[in-house]
Amino acid sequence: MVKKQNIPTETIKRMIAYLRYLERVKDKGVKIISSRDITLLLNIPPAQFRKDLSFFGEFGKRGVGYNVENLIDTIKKLLGLNKKIKVIVVGAGRLGTALIQYPGFSEINIEIIGAFDINPQKVGQSIKGINIYNIKDIKKFITKNNIKIAILCVPADAAQSVADLLIEAKIKSILNFAPVVLILPEGINIANVDMAGEIGSIIYRMKEQA
Amino acid sequence: MVKKQNIPTETIKRMIAYLRYLERVKDKGVKIISSRDITLLLNIPPAQFRKDLSFFGEFGKRGVGYNVENLIDTIKKLLGLNKKIKVIVVGAGRLGTALIQYPGFSEINIEIIGAFDINPQKVGQSIKGINIYNIKDIKKFITKNNIKIAILCVPADAAQSVADLLIEAKIKSILNFAPVVLILPEGINIANVDMAGEIGSIIYRMKEQA
Repeated sequence: MVKKQNIPTETIKRMIAYLRYLERVKDKGVKIISSRDITLLLNIPPAQFRKDLSFFGEFGKRGVGYNVENLIDTIKKLLGLNKKIKVIVVGAGRLGTALIQYPGFSEINIEIIGAFDINPQKVGQSIKGINIYNIKDIKKFITKNNIKIAILCVPADAAQSVADLLIEAKIKSILNFAPVVLILPEGINIANVDMAGEIGSIIYRMKEQA
Repeated sequence: MVKKQNIPTETIKRMIAYLRYLERVKDKGVKIISSRDITLLLNIPPAQFRKDLSFFGEFGKRGVGYNVENLIDTIKKLLGLNKKIKVIVVGAGRLGTALIQYPGFSEINIEIIGAFDINPQKVGQSIKGINIYNIKDIKKFITKNNIKIAILCVPADAAQSVADLLIEAKIKSILNFAPVVLILPEGINIANVDMAGEIGSIIYRMKEQA
């Protein structure tokens, strides 16, 4: 039985970490893995691992170990990552350019199929085979390619207006790297990544300790 | 009076966002700014902004607006960002290379002064003027340059052993991009950034909505 209700975001994130780890051991030719090996290498308490999996029902037999390929397929299916997820990157500055090349996305079946920018010197270029298009063509592109997810890495003062444009184009989820709080209609999924904020907060804690 | 106790991490992160925003308006020549303008552009409720500042005591006069340069200086001082903070990047892969060039760090006075890798083809190269050193020299470098903070972007299966090395070298804080949970001694500050986990969690929520 699959228990679907109220799965914590932290569980989902750990499932993604398990998945990325399993993909790597699979690439090394490993066929069977114990939960102990998974949890040892990711530093997750074994009880946590079992609890995470239990949100999704039973799979694998305790004591026998998991078939790596089966476990990958099962987790992918549970998380909705069993088919390629096409995403776009909006803002092809230094961070956007980096994200286009970030291997952690493709590992979990996420494929960046286009990037958008307002800068005429960037439009028409490509990064590792990903074309940079003019942002004025973004709505047409989203509709034509049935894109549901955008990675937003434009400057802070452009972020809300670009987000509004994405919503108009029927984007359903945004991974936001701009250091602003986006105002979005209900039902839109948002995740914020604030790297400067994270490092700033540890610097503050260090200052307080001193 | 400065009230120092129990400032939530979310407040610190918003302070960093205010700071980055103020640096940008300062660059545009703005001298005086109202709290309304700050909160409008970052989409923060004005009451939230006032509450965030109140953690640090009174500054600025309501109704008059803030002197941009003074507010920047005050926030920097409060957060421990009033002098350059030297950091190192460990792991000069695609993500590490991107982070070396990420403008969001230098905006808040964080200066990357070196990168480290195990790959002999990378060691000796430089990225935007930042040298890539051999990881076997990292302890000497940390001691010599009195580094307290490391940005960790090595692969998952190397993350714990590299973190152990950093702790041996007396690093006090780690910004971790590897999708593992690091086991660290008490008193070490850690912040985790998991970009694949964040996007994976919004894909899962989209799947559940469908």
